[in-house]
Amino acid sequence: MESLKSKDRLDHKITLVHELLRKHRLTEQIVHNGDSPRKELLESILHRQNLVELEQKLKRMHTADLAHIIELLPPEDRLIVWSRVCDQCGGEILLEVSEAVRKNLVNDMSEDQIQSALRQMDGDDLAFIADDVPDAFLQMRLASLSSEEQDWILASLNYSEGTVGDLMSNEMVIVHETDTLGQAELHLRSLRELPIHNDKLFVIDLRGLFKGVLPLQSILLNEPDVRVADVMVTKVVRFAPYDDASDASMAFERYDLISAPVVNARGKLLGRLTVDVVMDYLRERSGDDVLNMAGVEKDEDLFSPLMDSVKNRGVWLVINLFTAFIASRVIGVFEDTIVQLVALAALMPIIASVGGNTGNQTSALIIRAMSKGQITDENTKHLFRKEVGVSAINGLMLGTAVGLFALVFYQDVALALVISVAMLLTLIVAAVLGMVVPVLINKSGRDPALGSSVILTATTDSIGFFIFLGLAALFLV
Amino acid sequence: MESLKSKDRLDHKITLVHELLRKHRLTEQIVHNGDSPRKELLESILHRQNLVELEQKLKRMHTADLAHIIELLPPEDRLIVWSRVCDQCGGEILLEVSEAVRKNLVNDMSEDQIQSALRQMDGDDLAFIADDVPDAFLQMRLASLSSEEQDWILASLNYSEGTVGDLMSNEMVIVHETDTLGQAELHLRSLRELPIHNDKLFVIDLRGLFKGVLPLQSILLNEPDVRVADVMVTKVVRFAPYDDASDASMAFERYDLISAPVVNARGKLLGRLTVDVVMDYLRERSGDDVLNMAGVEKDEDLFSPLMDSVKNRGVWLVINLFTAFIASRVIGVFEDTIVQLVALAALMPIIASVGGNTGNQTSALIIRAMSKGQITDENTKHLFRKEVGVSAINGLMLGTAVGLFALVFYQDVALALVISVAMLLTLIVAAVLGMVVPVLINKSGRDPALGSSVILTATTDSIGFFIFLGLAALFLV
Repeated sequence: MESLKSKDRLDHKITLVHELLRKHRLTEQIVHNGDSPRKELLESILHRQNLVELEQKLKRMHTADLAHIIELLPPEDRLIVWSRVCDQCGGEILLEVSEAVRKNLVNDMSEDQIQSALRQMDGDDLAFIADDVPDAFLQMRLASLSSEEQDWILASLNYSEGTVGDLMSNEMVIVHETDTLGQAELHLRSLRELPIHNDKLFVIDLRGLFKGVLPLQSILLNEPDVRVADVMVTKVVRFAPYDDASDASMAFERYDLISAPVVNARGKLLGRLTVDVVMDYLRERSGDDVLNMAGVEKDEDLFSPLMDSVKNRGVWLVINLFTAFIASRVIGVFEDTIVQLVALAALMPIIASVGGNTGNQTSALIIRAMSKGQITDENTKHLFRKEVGVSAINGLMLGTAVGLFALVFYQDVALALVISVAMLLTLIVAAVLGMVVPVLINKSGRDPALGSSVILTATTDSIGFFIFLGLAALFLV
Repeated sequence: MESLKSKDRLDHKITLVHELLRKHRLTEQIVHNGDSPRKELLESILHRQNLVELEQKLKRMHTADLAHIIELLPPEDRLIVWSRVCDQCGGEILLEVSEAVRKNLVNDMSEDQIQSALRQMDGDDLAFIADDVPDAFLQMRLASLSSEEQDWILASLNYSEGTVGDLMSNEMVIVHETDTLGQAELHLRSLRELPIHNDKLFVIDLRGLFKGVLPLQSILLNEPDVRVADVMVTKVVRFAPYDDASDASMAFERYDLISAPVVNARGKLLGRLTVDVVMDYLRERSGDDVLNMAGVEKDEDLFSPLMDSVKNRGVWLVINLFTAFIASRVIGVFEDTIVQLVALAALMPIIASVGGNTGNQTSALIIRAMSKGQITDENTKHLFRKEVGVSAINGLMLGTAVGLFALVFYQDVALALVISVAMLLTLIVAAVLGMVVPVLINKSGRDPALGSSVILTATTDSIGFFIFLGLAALFLV
């Protein structure tokens, strides 16, 4: 029986695996460095003992836990664990891990192992994993399926990532509207195993058109001779295959759904979307905004190969470098002013830093509200006014503070006034940009978070320097 | 029947409400400015017509949609809509909206309205909402409940936010292990309405101790004379009331749960956790990291009162200001060097900007991995080496690029070399800080994202300036 606290239990397992791997590495080192043959033999036995113990522990774990542990292990340890569990439940684990890790694991598999993993998967699974396994193996596995299943997979592959069609499954229990509840119950009993999250049956008419759903409990709560059509629910949240998966996930949350029908434009029932898939999708994306804002593409895994990470992040750093060059040239224009009043050089990063963070605060709010579907054309104007208002008030306060700071260190009232005004203006511009940047990225059809922080801080830097040094050139020297 | 695309349908509703509100405001203005009494009467009728139309549209909407629309409306519009729907389904809407909006709505309610909304709530709802309604009203409502329900609410209030106990419900169907499936089915039929997400029944023994669960479908798939104890599932993921809610949400995702028992240390069944509550919790928190990194507390609503927002964000900006003062003083130390070589002033923000973003990339990865439970003491060392490696390679490339930039604009080989080396060193330090800052914030018991971006950019600024100007002072002047 599982212990009380699922979290502590999992943490315990993780520590155990780490511990066994550490022992394994230790004995491996001794084996390699061993000088006396006798010692070598002894250590080699120890070594094998550790691996056997590891294998036994792994065999007793839930595949979901195995997948989690495999994800958090560094590459070399990951492959040791993978080689122990791959034959037994490789298919399921491949389905659970993230895309980056999946590619890493597939690369390490023999042809036989890939084929055996694919044999553990059904049509939905194969469609889900299709992009990440060599095509030849996929074709071989497909050939062994029924033509019905093949059609389903080919249809699924047509839906692009992030659509409902891509996430839907064909495992569902279907009844006809003319059936009685007794017949529906008999049908259920005739199935050896029910699909996961089978909270309702799907009702179609003779032409295969979707008519409604029959909650499982209405079979239990009504008499067996009642007709399905009389108790089925027709007011149902349904999805079209090309609907956006993140909209669907919001609908699942809003209407507390467990499963929902996917219906095409002609009213034909195509498949079923379930809450577990929706939750995986939500979870998978839940940290994406954080990464995107900072300029990291989402499919970087913790232990992605070094050069993949370098390339992935380098792109945004190069963009960052070019925008920093622009900021640098803005300052370059004012070099004469700085030579005459070197205090400007020491003070200007304050403007840039606070400006950048103010912009980030606004854009973080907008990005979160966008991902919750809360931004409309109509409320943008109100938001705009509010954000500028908040920045103006903060600008007045922080402007005063930075003015006092300048006065203390440079005893120059004019300089203090200039930096106060520059801070106020920069913060107002930063708030405007903090709204405009994510909105523009979004309008360009990309994720509004993608690189927003990089673009934003670069722009506020240049503008902040220009405002501060420009005012200084006009009024101070 | 609901239309095909739930997202478009909702968007359409939102536009409609916006439109009616716009009309309403327009006629209201005309009414107030109207000069001829006849025109005034006419407009006033129009005015009332709009509100009636609005009210009719609102009445036909799902409460979850109403809650969503109320959240995205600016305050004045929000209260107009709220006053139209509050009497009818105010209780449900209050439960759906975010905390900040809930407080805003409660402030606008009359005493009668609050009491009527509370009457629409059951014990779980009242416990959930307790912090956001005036205590007197809550007490009044509590007094009208059974002593059993009262005990439940008081117990619930003891669990702090973010624990399983805070999210669990007491609505569940319980059977005894000695019952037969036929008796269990009879028990189900005797209930007029089943709890939401009732995918399984909970099995207890005579002492009330939790023994296992009975999936709904095992009643359908087995004969009625089979004993519950013989078909119940005993290997069940269960939670303790003080378990962390985010750990529980990961377990729900990992093991594809719909509902799970909450059991205390003595093995007594306390309540039930369901997937809808877990999803709400996930969703509610899904944008928190983005906000926290930028220094915005999570309970800021899009249209929070201006001064609340000023205070909320000002705190982090003040921290930011102090750290910027430090960076400014670092530069101040090198003012003599800058006067001799003013190019330093123009170049130094490049180092600070790229350094800040490099640190942010690393910390974003770490923060996401932390929130997915992927960081362990054992893999931190590997991660550390990898992150430093990525930064070193990027530092070499970007350092070369910035060196060439310096060479082009200032024709100074020594300066170009100094800035190249400074870039490399700063990026390595930034990667180290990008790992250390979230880990330290996390160790201090706070959300690792909270203010990480503010702290990080400030630190990389100071260190970057110090490295660059320090090297320049040593080798260039």
